[in-house]
Order: sequence, then structure tokens, then C-alpha cells
Amino acid sequence: MNKSIPVLPSRGALRPLGIDEVRITGGYWGRRQRTNAEVQIRHCLHWLEELGWIANFEKAASGEPFERAGREFSDSEVYKLAEAMAWEIGRTGSPGLEEEFARLTERMAAAQEPDGYLNTRFGHPGQEPRYSNLEWGHELYCYGHLLQAAVARLRTRGEDGFVQIARKVADHVCDVFGPGGLERLDGHAEIEVALAEFGRATGERRYLDQAKAFIDRYGRDTLGRGGPGPEYSQDDVPVREAEVLRGHAVRALYLASGAIDVAVETGDGELLEAVRRQWDRTLARRTHLTGGMGSRYSDEAFGEDFSLSPDRAYAESCAGVAAVMTAWRLLLATGETAYGDMIERVAWNILAGAAAPDGQSFFYANPLHQRTADPEPPADRAMPHVAARGRRAPWFDVSCCPTNLARTFASLSAYVATADEAGLQIHQYMPASVATELAGGPVELAVEADYPDSGTIAVRVERNEAGEWTLGLRVPSWAEGAVLTGPSGERREVEPGAVSVTADFAVGDTVRLELPVAPRWTRPDPRIDAVRGCVAVEQGPLVLCAESVDLPGGADVAELTVDAGKAPVGHDGAVTVAGHVHRSADAWPYGPDPGPETGREAVEVGLIPFHLRATREPATMRVWLPTE
Amino acid sequence: MNKSIPVLPSRGALRPLGIDEVRITGGYWGRRQRTNAEVQIRHCLHWLEELGWIANFEKAASGEPFERAGREFSDSEVYKLAEAMAWEIGRTGSPGLEEEFARLTERMAAAQEPDGYLNTRFGHPGQEPRYSNLEWGHELYCYGHLLQAAVARLRTRGEDGFVQIARKVADHVCDVFGPGGLERLDGHAEIEVALAEFGRATGERRYLDQAKAFIDRYGRDTLGRGGPGPEYSQDDVPVREAEVLRGHAVRALYLASGAIDVAVETGDGELLEAVRRQWDRTLARRTHLTGGMGSRYSDEAFGEDFSLSPDRAYAESCAGVAAVMTAWRLLLATGETAYGDMIERVAWNILAGAAAPDGQSFFYANPLHQRTADPEPPADRAMPHVAARGRRAPWFDVSCCPTNLARTFASLSAYVATADEAGLQIHQYMPASVATELAGGPVELAVEADYPDSGTIAVRVERNEAGEWTLGLRVPSWAEGAVLTGPSGERREVEPGAVSVTADFAVGDTVRLELPVAPRWTRPDPRIDAVRGCVAVEQGPLVLCAESVDLPGGADVAELTVDAGKAPVGHDGAVTVAGHVHRSADAWPYGPDPGPETGREAVEVGLIPFHLRATREPATMRVWLPTE
Repeated sequence: MNKSIPVLPSRGALRPLGIDEVRITGGYWGRRQRTNAEVQIRHCLHWLEELGWIANFEKAASGEPFERAGREFSDSEVYKLAEAMAWEIGRTGSPGLEEEFARLTERMAAAQEPDGYLNTRFGHPGQEPRYSNLEWGHELYCYGHLLQAAVARLRTRGEDGFVQIARKVADHVCDVFGPGGLERLDGHAEIEVALAEFGRATGERRYLDQAKAFIDRYGRDTLGRGGPGPEYSQDDVPVREAEVLRGHAVRALYLASGAIDVAVETGDGELLEAVRRQWDRTLARRTHLTGGMGSRYSDEAFGEDFSLSPDRAYAESCAGVAAVMTAWRLLLATGETAYGDMIERVAWNILAGAAAPDGQSFFYANPLHQRTADPEPPADRAMPHVAARGRRAPWFDVSCCPTNLARTFASLSAYVATADEAGLQIHQYMPASVATELAGGPVELAVEADYPDSGTIAVRVERNEAGEWTLGLRVPSWAEGAVLTGPSGERREVEPGAVSVTADFAVGDTVRLELPVAPRWTRPDPRIDAVRGCVAVEQGPLVLCAESVDLPGGADVAELTVDAGKAPVGHDGAVTVAGHVHRSADAWPYGPDPGPETGREAVEVGLIPFHLRATREPATMRVWLPTE
Repeated sequence: MNKSIPVLPSRGALRPLGIDEVRITGGYWGRRQRTNAEVQIRHCLHWLEELGWIANFEKAASGEPFERAGREFSDSEVYKLAEAMAWEIGRTGSPGLEEEFARLTERMAAAQEPDGYLNTRFGHPGQEPRYSNLEWGHELYCYGHLLQAAVARLRTRGEDGFVQIARKVADHVCDVFGPGGLERLDGHAEIEVALAEFGRATGERRYLDQAKAFIDRYGRDTLGRGGPGPEYSQDDVPVREAEVLRGHAVRALYLASGAIDVAVETGDGELLEAVRRQWDRTLARRTHLTGGMGSRYSDEAFGEDFSLSPDRAYAESCAGVAAVMTAWRLLLATGETAYGDMIERVAWNILAGAAAPDGQSFFYANPLHQRTADPEPPADRAMPHVAARGRRAPWFDVSCCPTNLARTFASLSAYVATADEAGLQIHQYMPASVATELAGGPVELAVEADYPDSGTIAVRVERNEAGEWTLGLRVPSWAEGAVLTGPSGERREVEPGAVSVTADFAVGDTVRLELPVAPRWTRPDPRIDAVRGCVAVEQGPLVLCAESVDLPGGADVAELTVDAGKAPVGHDGAVTVAGHVHRSADAWPYGPDPGPETGREAVEVGLIPFHLRATREPATMRVWLPTE
């Protein structure tokens, strides 16, 4: 069975529901999908045209030497946008977008060589030869995004010219890098996860085998040495031997996703267990409160264990997309709700904030502490991604996030619900309609949730021809004291984890989950040096932050301390904490009693969701608040 | 009057004494100078030959296309080593080194163009043209180091072939970048400070004027845009308008040094005041406890105010050299002892530890927290400088520190003492002999000090034909309760700052300063987020650290907390603190009560001087210790 879905394993604990089965009907994510469709995808298309990253394909097709625009991986942005468009067409059937998609397909097809090779950066007159720089060339990485776009197309519209391009590319990759061919890797993982899914979508076993071959090559010295060392590209150790995610965060997470797919499809329990082990340690020691991954600006990399500086957190937006990919695959394989917790955390605190509410500007990195009140970048200039800090920018020289977010937003409903033999599970809470076929027959549900403003989630049965089945719900790990009300009105307190109600549901039956969404203090593991002596405030799945615009008298967030003895107060949708603003004199900052205070003022400070930071005047911001 | 001295301003509060006037006669720095002479300089010479960085000069001289070795700035390493050799020849008269110096001179001279241009990376057949990439080409930066070497030579041996090369280079720079010429900058400051001093040493006003012209060009958009932005090269703002040091730390400090020289020579009080202001704020907000400057691996840069993560501190060794250069110039200009405090801090905690005790391996960065017990790098391979972390390496791809340390060690006695109309001041304490001419006539002193193992410094008058004069001594800012004993035995408690004794000293008269060198707790300014809730131990000028090899049962420094209620204990040259080793389970590290403890053991931990870290087995290390 093919469905409108980005990930469709042939086995595993849970079977995912596609975007044709789950529709987001409102709320924050409904608005986000609409903005994505109406603004963000168009915005990306505009910039890709403006900068000539699409025109590269036509120039490459010309056979003449040409001046190429963009970085070596710019083709991938076109593919990621194509994927976003494909999902959006699948979701809404937008005819305007279908026309654009067809035009894009033609322009790409023209650049494809007869043997399937397709890349605008290599192999053309005046360019370096194909595959001459696998460490940094990103040719296979770009293919990967093309294949993922083709999966979207194949599973929403079926075979077409775009899918044909992808088939030729996939065959070419197997020819060149398969048995007896070049036994090498790409410096940026992505082809693995893409080939595995394209194999699932097309039924071509050869693609899956090639994905497995790539996975097996890591840590075996097939990638050249140079640049920041083998850890950067996860080539330091074979995937199944590694203990933790490391090196470049996006690379590490794309690789982990591909490894799970290969493990699941080949029944390789050892490999699956290896990735779980790496994920667990990464969450315990290398992940920020926001779910942000990648502690370092240097190399955009995971840092060492417990090296989690809030102000130098990189927490790249694309690492957020990739973390959702990894967590979702682990959830499908194991059925454990903790993976859904992480998806929720990343979605609300990285993905939601990485794109401005209007879908026209983006964060590349998502640090948890912004020390300077940076001005708004110009709306008409691509920003160096390394310079992007306190405000969202319209585009970057390395502009991986806008298109990556666009494809994720367009396919977001695919991460909401699953089914298994026993019934149906809802993992993410938002207004939605769900319609699928269970073992016993078709069911339809309506999910109502003003979440996380309210903690009440109501699942109403709209149709049930499946007889008795089990509705599973995720109680997030932070939700101590949650209450579940079954269809006949019986209330029970439930523990974090998976809860369920089994019934032969009647139409109109409603299962209600009440999650405690009062704001709460959160404390860090004492081994996280960078936030020792600090607390954060969370509210439901939201991480909150303080911005200097909410402090009196032009004070900076650096001058704020909070009284963690008093609970944070939530009222009328706002959250405040009590604390003080301090003023200190400058001197040598170390000694028996440094930093003598010169002033102190009691304050009640309003906090806002981290994802809404930097949407007012320029401000300093921090998530972790020093305690008094 | 010319002296054997690296910095000789024509005015200022204090007149520096040269290496011919102050000789280090023993102790740590005496050993360091001997190791530098006998091992480190030879080690550098070996690597420069081995890697072909010297041979580049011969190849460039050939007029044929050649494959050049090393990075674009490798010429400068040869010049810095030449400077080290020149000082060492001046200090000891070593004939073997004099021969090597002559050979080096010949090889360089051959590569100089008739118009004075000298660089092995540009302008030769097959290379890019001269000055075609001022942002990254480092041509003027390399000249700067050549001129500083020539200052050393001119002031120790007088005019020779080497000085001739430098004169031609300096004239060429004035011709090309002077009035009516290229009004541009080099992306790496250094030419400014070098031209100013070469102007002082040669008496050529034109060189000083050119230094001033360069200083005045910063922040005026004469440097191309690209790379990490104008702040990186201090080209964001004119020097006299800046509020703090920023961007690449070594660049910033070389520039500050040059600006002080220009300010002093031109009587530009506003410019001098601007640099002082920048220095003061840099010390209050952007400097590590060790005196290390540069908070970031990214761009090797100063971070934002109070962004001082110990584990990601870059605190580059060369920034230590450069901080001494800046502080010394400010000390000479103003006479304030606080600058001497900073020189002491940097010398003992950055410079001393950046080179291994045997002078054969080096730290490029000097973070205050090492999270992994890194293995010893191979002794026969240059290490990528970005990969250099927990252990010293014999050489780097970017190997600026070994030669920079060598030239500093060889000329170290030039930073010990000064004179003025009233008398003589001693700023740094080590066994030394001082012989100079005061206003009233010649004096000779012997300094005895087993410092900082002991806090007692004895200054004995060996000769006095100057009548009554004032001996000034620096009481470091940490030395609360210091005691000064005058020549007639009168003892008095003295405050940190400058203290003095005025007398018509007789031969044998001794002035004794007793500094309290018991180990002490040091606390950070509460605005330094990264070390909140931590204390460090200092002992005299030494910052101490804990290494995991001193913890029981294979514990890591990440598991250590200390009881800051009990004073650190010093006994028999060792220092211990009381604390606990904790064991915790791994889980999601944020919540109401994360990181539950699974074990706890009371410990007495020995601490060692930071500069001696990484000289035993591989270990984790930290300076800032979490309190209980």
C-alpha cells in the first residue's frame, strides 16, 4: 500500500498515518501550514530564482562553460523546495503550485546527463570532474534531497517526470557506488536515508541495498581525510560501534535516520540498538532544553558531553528537522512514547521559532541566550549564516533551513498519529481530523485542542466501523498529574508515558486528556556546567524565555536574577516570575568578592515562548535564569 | 640611546630597561630561558626546515615556478624565529646561533626583489600578484615580524645584512602604502606596531608616520569585505572610537599595541585613552582568570561581554604574547602597576604553560576546562591547530605559537624593570641582576626570589653611585597583607599597588617584600554565566587546576565538587581542597530534579599549577570547581 507519507517502514511497532489520513484543521500548526503554503514556499522560490540557484540547472544543461551561483550544495535547496511543493500539492491540490512544480521538473531534467548524473557544480566544462571531491562536493547529499522529493511526489501524485529523474539518479548511484564500483562515501550523510525510502516507495530492493552499503562504509576510512577530521562526518567509527552522536549535528542525525531505516528493513536489531544507544546518550548529555542539538558554532557540531553553553549553542534549525526525522523513525520502530516527547519539544521550541510567524525570515542557529540586541537584517540581502545571531534573516549564503522547514511544515501531519493491530495512537496534539482503516474497518476521529494554551485534548469519534479497538495517547514526561476521561465519563489520573482507552466506540464518544500546563521551574543536571545555578520556565511543551524589552529601565537580561522559591505565575496567557535587576561596577572580575553590586531593583518579569523571541524590538534574551 | 630592548618609547611615565641591563639569573624563568636557548629555538628551526617553510625563500629566489610549503603566513614564522635568535644572540652571544642567523639572512636576502618586496606566497611565477588579497594574504603581517626581528638585531648587534633587508622592506611599504599610494590595510594587524618600533630604532620618522597612517585607516572601509565580517580584523570602527577589544584576539592586541606606540610618539592623548578604555573593559568583561584572551574557537575571537566559557575558551598562546605587548606599553606610558599584574598573570598562566617544560611541544589554545583525556599527539607530525586540545603538540599547520613564545622567552628580562627620574621600579619577581644608569649615576641590584613558591622578594643593592633614589616595587592586586621591610629593617604593611623606598642606598642594603602566597579561593563576577556556582584556587600569581589523575577510582573532573567553606590547604609545595566525587545516572537532564545522584565519596584533591597541566598521563582538567 502506498500512502502520502514521508516514512513508511515495512515493519516496526507502529504504522504511520499519512497526510491523506491526518489533516491539521487549525491552531498554531494549522496557521503554520497555511503560512508555509501561502508565503514561505513562495519566499523560497523567489530567493532561489533571485540568486540563480535554479538557473544553474539551465546553465548546466547548455553544455557551455558558465558562472555558477551559490555554494556547492545549492542544488539541494531546489530539491528541498520541490519536496515542500510536492507535499503541499498533495495536501491541498494547489494548481498554481502544480504548474510551478512542472516547470521546475523541466528545468532540472534538462541538466541530467544520459547516464543519470545530475549536479550543477561538477563535471561541466571548466568544472572539476564528477566525484572528484566527495568530502566536500555534496553530490550524493544533493541526490538524497532529490530522492526525498521524489518520494513525496510518488506518494502523492504517482509516477511523473520528476520521479523519472530520481529513478535515473538512484540507478546511477547504484551503478557508480555499488558492488565493484567506487567504495566511498559522501562527506555529508543524506543519501542513505533517501535511498532507503526511495527503495520503499519504488519497491526497488537495489536502492535499499545501496543505502545499507553506504551505512556499512562509515568508520572504514573510505572518506578522504582533511578539514575538521573524521568525526565531523561520522567517519571516525562504524555506525554500529559508536556510543553517541558526534561531529556535525545535521550529518549525524541524517545518518542515524538512514541507519534506522536500514536496520528496520534488514531486521538488523544490533544496528537499531546501536542508534538507540547513541540517541539516549545524546539526549542525556548533548541536547539543550529546547531539544536543540549541536553545541558548537565550530563545525556546527555536537560538543563533548555536558558542554552545553546556552549562548554558544548552535542548535541548528536543520538539526531540529533531522532530530524529528530520527525520533520519528525510532518511535515507529519501538512504539515508545518518549520519542514523541522529543518530537514535541523540537517542534515547539526549534521548528516553530526557526521561521518567523510570517514565514519570511529564519534563524539558522537557535542559541538559548542572546547577549546583544541585534538589529533587524536587511530584507533584501542573503546573510552570511555564520553572522546570523539575534534576529531572523530572509535568506543565507548557506540557506539550508528555509527549504528544510518548508518541507517539514508541509508534511507535518504525517508525524501526528500511527496505528497498529490494536488500534490507533495520537502522538502530537493539535486540532486535526484523522481517517484511516484499522484492522476491523475504517475509523474517523476529530481532535480538538487549544494546546498548549490549554492542556485539554479531546478526541471525538466521528465514525467507527472497526468494532472494539484501542486509542493510545501520549502523556508527555513533564505531565505529572494528567487526567484521562474515557467515553463514559470515567476519570483517572495517568502517569507520563502511553495511556489508552479500549472500547467499541460509538460516534460522538469522546476521550479527553487533561495535561497540566501551568508554568513550572525546570532545573538542569548538575553536570551541565554552563547553566549551573540557573532555572528555566517551561509551560507544557514550551520553553519560555526572558527578553530585555520586558525589563524596566533598559536593563539587560544579563542583570536579571529570579527567585526560584516563588512559583512562576500564569494568568491570562501570560507568565511572570519574580526577581531582581542588579547593577554592578566593572573591575577585574575575579577575586574574594568580585562584581560588587551598585544597585538592585525588584521586578516581576513577563516571559514569552522561546519560539516567539525576536519578534518585537531588538532585545537580549535568555532561557536559563540565574537564581538568587 | 639605543638599548637591547624590544620596546623603547621616546616618552612616557617609565623608561624600560633592556636585556643588557636586566639578566635573569635563575628560578623558573631562568630555566625557561635556558630551555628556550638550548631546545626550543632548535626545535623551531628543525620544523621550519623540515616543512620547507625556510626553503620557500630559496625557491622564490629561483625565479622559477615552485610548489610552496605552508600556509600564506609561514614566512612570518621564519621571521619570529629570527627574532628569537637575535635576542638569544644578544643575551648570550651564542656563536653557533650567530652562524645560523647569518645563513638565514642570506637565504631571505636572496628572495627580496630589487624594490624591497619580500614574500614567498605572492608575485612569483604561477602565484597571484602582490597585494592582490590584502584581507587574507598576510604580506604586511609578515613584514611586521621581519621588522620586529630587525629591531632585535639592530639593538643587539647593530647594522647588518638582516637589518638591510628590513630597511628595504620598510621603505617599500612606505612607498606602496604611503601618501598617494594604496590606502589599504592588511587583514592581520602587526605592521603598525612593527613600523613604529623600527622607526624608533632607526630614527626614521617616515616609518612612524606610516604606522600612524595604518592605524588611522581602521574602520574606514579600506579593507575588503568577506569572511567573518569587519569586526574580525578590527575594521568595524576607527581605533579611537572603539569601546572594547573585539574580533580576532591576536589581531586586536597587536593593533592595540601599535596604536599605543603611535599615540605615545605623536603625543595623541585621545588615542592612548581610547586604548586604555578598551583594555579596561576587556579585562572586566572578556578575559579569563588565567589572563587568557579570546573566548571563541570560532574566528579565534573575543566573545561578547561575559561570554567566558572555560571549556570553549580559546585563550590562544599568541594572544598571551600579544597581551603582554599591550600591557607593557600601557605600563610604560602610564606607570600604573595594574598593567604589571596582568603581565604576571599571563606569563605564569598562559606563556609558562603554552610551552612544555622541555620546550618541545606547545598548546595553541589554552582552555580552562578539558573534558576529555586526550592522548599524546605524535612527536613527528604537525597537528591541525583546530584539533589541538588536551595535550601539547610538537608543531601545527598554523604554527604561530612556538616561535612567538621563543622570541618572548628570549627577551623576557626586558619586561622586568623600568626607571624614571626618581629611581628604579621592579615589576616582575624572579632571580635577576639589574645594572643601569639612573639620573644620579650607575646602580646595580640583585633580586633574590624563590617566587612564587615563596612570597619573599629581596632586592639587594650591589652598587650605588646615584645617591638618593627611589626603589619602586609592585604589590600585586591579590596580595592583601603584604609586608615591606626597608634597608634599615623597618617593617610596614603595604596595600596592593605601587610601593617604594627612598634612600641613599649603601652596598648590601636590602629591601624585602613579603607577598602572601598561601592558596586562596577566587570567586567570579556573578555576570560570568559559565562559571556561576564555581570557585577557583589561586596561589600567588598562579591559577591552579584539578586533573582527573589526582581523583580516586578513575573519576572525572566533571564529577567533582568542592567545599568552599574550608580553605584550601598548602603544605610542602602541594595544595589540596576538600570535596566530593559524585556519580549520577543518565536521563533527560532537565526537570524538577534532574541528575539523581547514585554515589558520593568524600575526597581531598591535590591541585597543580595550570601551567603544569597535561604533563603527566592523559587527564581531564578544570580550573573552575563547582561548589557544594
